[in-house]
Amino acid sequence: MTQSIGFIGLGIMGQPMATNLVRAGYKVTVFNRTRSKAEPLEKAGARVAISPAEAARDADVVISIVSDSAAAEEVILGKGGALETLRAGAIVIDSSTISPIVSRRLACHTAGKGAQMLDAPVTGSKHGAEKGELTFMIGGERAVLDRAMSVLQVLGKKHIYCGQNGSGLAAKLAQNVIQAAMVEVFCEGFVLAAKAGVQPRTMFEIVQSSMARASLTDFKAPFIFKGDFTPYFPLKLMHKDLALAMEAAYAQGVAMPTAAAVKEVYGAAKAKGKGDQDYAAVITFLEEIAGVQVRD
Amino acid sequence: MTQSIGFIGLGIMGQPMATNLVRAGYKVTVFNRTRSKAEPLEKAGARVAISPAEAARDADVVISIVSDSAAAEEVILGKGGALETLRAGAIVIDSSTISPIVSRRLACHTAGKGAQMLDAPVTGSKHGAEKGELTFMIGGERAVLDRAMSVLQVLGKKHIYCGQNGSGLAAKLAQNVIQAAMVEVFCEGFVLAAKAGVQPRTMFEIVQSSMARASLTDFKAPFIFKGDFTPYFPLKLMHKDLALAMEAAYAQGVAMPTAAAVKEVYGAAKAKGKGDQDYAAVITFLEEIAGVQVRD
Amino acid sequence: MTQSIGFIGLGIMGQPMATNLVRAGYKVTVFNRTRSKAEPLEKAGARVAISPAEAARDADVVISIVSDSAAAEEVILGKGGALETLRAGAIVIDSSTISPIVSRRLACHTAGKGAQMLDAPVTGSKHGAEKGELTFMIGGERAVLDRAMSVLQVLGKKHIYCGQNGSGLAAKLAQNVIQAAMVEVFCEGFVLAAKAGVQPRTMFEIVQSSMARASLTDFKAPFIFKGDFTPYFPLKLMHKDLALAMEAAYAQGVAMPTAAAVKEVYGAAKAKGKGDQDYAAVITFLEEIAGVQVRD
Amino acid sequence: MTQSIGFIGLGIMGQPMATNLVRAGYKVTVFNRTRSKAEPLEKAGARVAISPAEAARDADVVISIVSDSAAAEEVILGKGGALETLRAGAIVIDSSTISPIVSRRLACHTAGKGAQMLDAPVTGSKHGAEKGELTFMIGGERAVLDRAMSVLQVLGKKHIYCGQNGSGLAAKLAQNVIQAAMVEVFCEGFVLAAKAGVQPRTMFEIVQSSMARASLTDFKAPFIFKGDFTPYFPLKLMHKDLALAMEAAYAQGVAMPTAAAVKEVYGAAKAKGKGDQDYAAVITFLEEIAGVQVRD
Repeated sequence: MTQSIGFIGLGIMGQPMATNLVRAGYKVTVFNRTRSKAEPLEKAGARVAISPAEAARDADVVISIVSDSAAAEEVILGKGGALETLRAGAIVIDSSTISPIVSRRLACHTAGKGAQMLDAPVTGSKHGAEKGELTFMIGGERAVLDRAMSVLQVLGKKHIYCGQNGSGLAAKLAQNVIQAAMVEVFCEGFVLAAKAGVQPRTMFEIVQSSMARASLTDFKAPFIFKGDFTPYFPLKLMHKDLALAMEAAYAQGVAMPTAAAVKEVYGAAKAKGKGDQDYAAVITFLEEIAGVQVRD
Repeated sequence: MTQSIGFIGLGIMGQPMATNLVRAGYKVTVFNRTRSKAEPLEKAGARVAISPAEAARDADVVISIVSDSAAAEEVILGKGGALETLRAGAIVIDSSTISPIVSRRLACHTAGKGAQMLDAPVTGSKHGAEKGELTFMIGGERAVLDRAMSVLQVLGKKHIYCGQNGSGLAAKLAQNVIQAAMVEVFCEGFVLAAKAGVQPRTMFEIVQSSMARASLTDFKAPFIFKGDFTPYFPLKLMHKDLALAMEAAYAQGVAMPTAAAVKEVYGAAKAKGKGDQDYAAVITFLEEIAGVQVRD
Repeated sequence: MTQSIGFIGLGIMGQPMATNLVRAGYKVTVFNRTRSKAEPLEKAGARVAISPAEAARDADVVISIVSDSAAAEEVILGKGGALETLRAGAIVIDSSTISPIVSRRLACHTAGKGAQMLDAPVTGSKHGAEKGELTFMIGGERAVLDRAMSVLQVLGKKHIYCGQNGSGLAAKLAQNVIQAAMVEVFCEGFVLAAKAGVQPRTMFEIVQSSMARASLTDFKAPFIFKGDFTPYFPLKLMHKDLALAMEAAYAQGVAMPTAAAVKEVYGAAKAKGKGDQDYAAVITFLEEIAGVQVRD
Repeated sequence: MTQSIGFIGLGIMGQPMATNLVRAGYKVTVFNRTRSKAEPLEKAGARVAISPAEAARDADVVISIVSDSAAAEEVILGKGGALETLRAGAIVIDSSTISPIVSRRLACHTAGKGAQMLDAPVTGSKHGAEKGELTFMIGGERAVLDRAMSVLQVLGKKHIYCGQNGSGLAAKLAQNVIQAAMVEVFCEGFVLAAKAGVQPRTMFEIVQSSMARASLTDFKAPFIFKGDFTPYFPLKLMHKDLALAMEAAYAQGVAMPTAAAVKEVYGAAKAKGKGDQDYAAVITFLEEIAGVQVRD
């Protein structure tokens, strides 16, 4: 029998994810705060609900992907939220990047309804979402994941089970701390070298000749050298993820002195108006201080 | 006509470098503070000098590779140092990783003798030195580099010209800041994930599935998971390079907030007795704080 | 006519505050999660409620002082919380040190009931609470503060109006950042000096001879020199306040690189088991790294 | 018999110090790199030397106060430096704020001439120098200090013996780290509060009501509120002292994570052109990021 899916949140990632589920033949009911964003889905064959609760009614699986912890609490726990109608035995997959602590609380409330939750944040761009090639990091019970796997396979090609509820998010945040720091410290190094008269291309050749070479910086460097900061992942979202990681570190008794420093640099860049640019734009904050440009 | 080479400093890197030069047919005169270390070179066919000055007398090229700024000043500028005997037109190649500021001063003094200096720090392990496969980052006049190239090609397979005197060192230090931070923040992320119940292998799979994957962390991770910190590059030397980078940043008006934080973490790890281990041992400092182990 | 006061939270500070209100002749109804803590108040003449809602019923003023943002949300907004019964025109004074963002949300919900809220965190020890000598930093409408002043004057001797809702908390957190950093960096300086052979008493004499002299460090230093870390203000609470300050800074686009570094040092000290000691115990974390003791 | 004094370095502090020695009846021979600065001293009755060596010839006590480690090495060890002529039994008092490591090396060389050195950096403004009210922090042998005390009493009113050579400087640097951090974190707190709508005067009242009150911030605050950064102590010199402190911490195995963060903030402010202003101008760097002004 065809599974019914409630899908909450039709943003940059949610839109193509929901579309893929419709195309795969699921009965999909979508909800988005701004209703107009639901129209393409409606045309594709989805039903449109007027509340998360309506989207969740009769659903076997509810998928939510919203912008922050408060929004996730609202669509799941709030008035008109999914838990109002969720039936026992259903599965909630929350793919939002939010606080692991909030996520564990949502999982508890979900369990209180006889249903179960997975935290399943993703990596991969809008493009990856369109092609169903996302990577999922998943926290919750493995048996629940097994039951949800057929749906998740429509959305992504890699599904990494991390452990108990909240651990998918912890893994995602750890991953983003590593990426944020790699890019920011790459920029610190390039500014230092540029100030000493080393051409950016020369410094790049050195990094590429070394074990520090990474796809991430291979990808970002040409954009940095052109000063093109069209957002692949906006700086303000990277700053948000760093803040979430520090919150998780606080809650778990982990010292992250470098992540803390990195977060303040992105935060300063955001405050200076660079939040909507790609996070590689953090280099311009460092350049403005040093009075140098890392450009071709 | 065969070129004469004075070679100063027979440490882990200097020993195989000098040996390669002897084997390549150069007339090599070596100097090392501890004379016994010169014996293998003597057997291989080098002459042994009792001072840097003696090693530099009649040399076309003087190569030095010593442990720090003070030692470099001593062997080049000090009493019995190379500049006492260096003839006009000779080339000094200093491959020590030292302060770019000190290096530029040495270059000035060398020019005062009618000779010329290149700063030419290397990356690559002892193994790379043995096989003549080092990478050189080179500062100084390009015409001088051209004249020195035949010698440098015996020692390494990649020679990256960076610009004016001191820029080779600036590039090397920028490179090491990037590596030091990559490894340290990788450790912060893994400790955060481990504390949330994510297995190290799982977290590693996530990093390897992402654009953050790098040969450096691919190489370090298995050692970290085994708790094997046999030194490839000792933590205390990475800490030294971070200190040199911060000194260069100070001199050039570059803010490096993340590098500053990273340096203090390595410094704390060194103070706790981990200086002679590989720099990946920085993770044990973070683990001891968080009360968790990132092990298989 | 005698005002009725609902008082929620009988911890170290709440207990003596509520007692002072009873003694001043107010009709006080108290609530505490652990009922046994309410007994002394009952003997003193307070009524004991079984929920925040019951404590708030008929109250002219509701005062809450609980441990964190979640607890404040629970006792005010939650099931059985004060807002369920609060009458229009009443005033809620929340003296908890919590997130200014959460506090502003509570103020909105309170306004929705036709009542009004002040955030009014305090400084001053248990001793100050007993003697009615606390300092209040107050956010909200000034007219509301004017109406609440007679009650607040029973509890403290200084009432500083800071501005709109949330600004009392922002001021309190800014103040604690300053104190936390002063003590921590005092410790860094003393460890550096001690490692160089300067006696702690000598270093202290230097600080006391300078403009950097402060009552705070004059007070903490003798305890540090004795290694006596009996908690005046526990390290874990200082770490909590630093985390709240960073959260507020994140929300408002303020870069606090030094506060971020300070927070990680306290966090590391807490993770190493020093959370229940006075926050001056942060020095022992630094001492353990440096291998030196700052003792008489 | 009247003691002869060689005095090297007639900067902002050196000028009034040397003048006080002349007035106290000592035979003073001065040296300054820029000779014109020696003219007022000549008129006051000092002899003017053309080199440090000439100033040191026949001196019982040589006092030097120059701008950095390199300058101190130059005037003491360099060609034409004081050690060339210094007689056995003389005392060198170096009041420059320089690296303790360099200072210890100078002390060794001085001992090699049968003379002895004290490191004796000062605190106190130009005004304090004029009135002979400086505070000296002194490293070296106590017996040497006893012999030098009569001279030092002309220059200052407080003389704090810190221990072995280099410890006077270590104490001075520790003191400046504390001051630099106090002012910078005061600024971070005020920016956070201002962004939340708290008036600077209100926040100041809170700090002044607390144990965190210090003469230093009482003094700086009114200038900050006016945006008046006329230099009492220029920001670039505070940055220099932070760099020296970090260098000393590196050499001695002390982790100073907060000092490291503070140094980068001052460094960024200096790079943005604020180096010649008072170090309280660091607030403008933080204000520019946060988009707020802490002004009356």
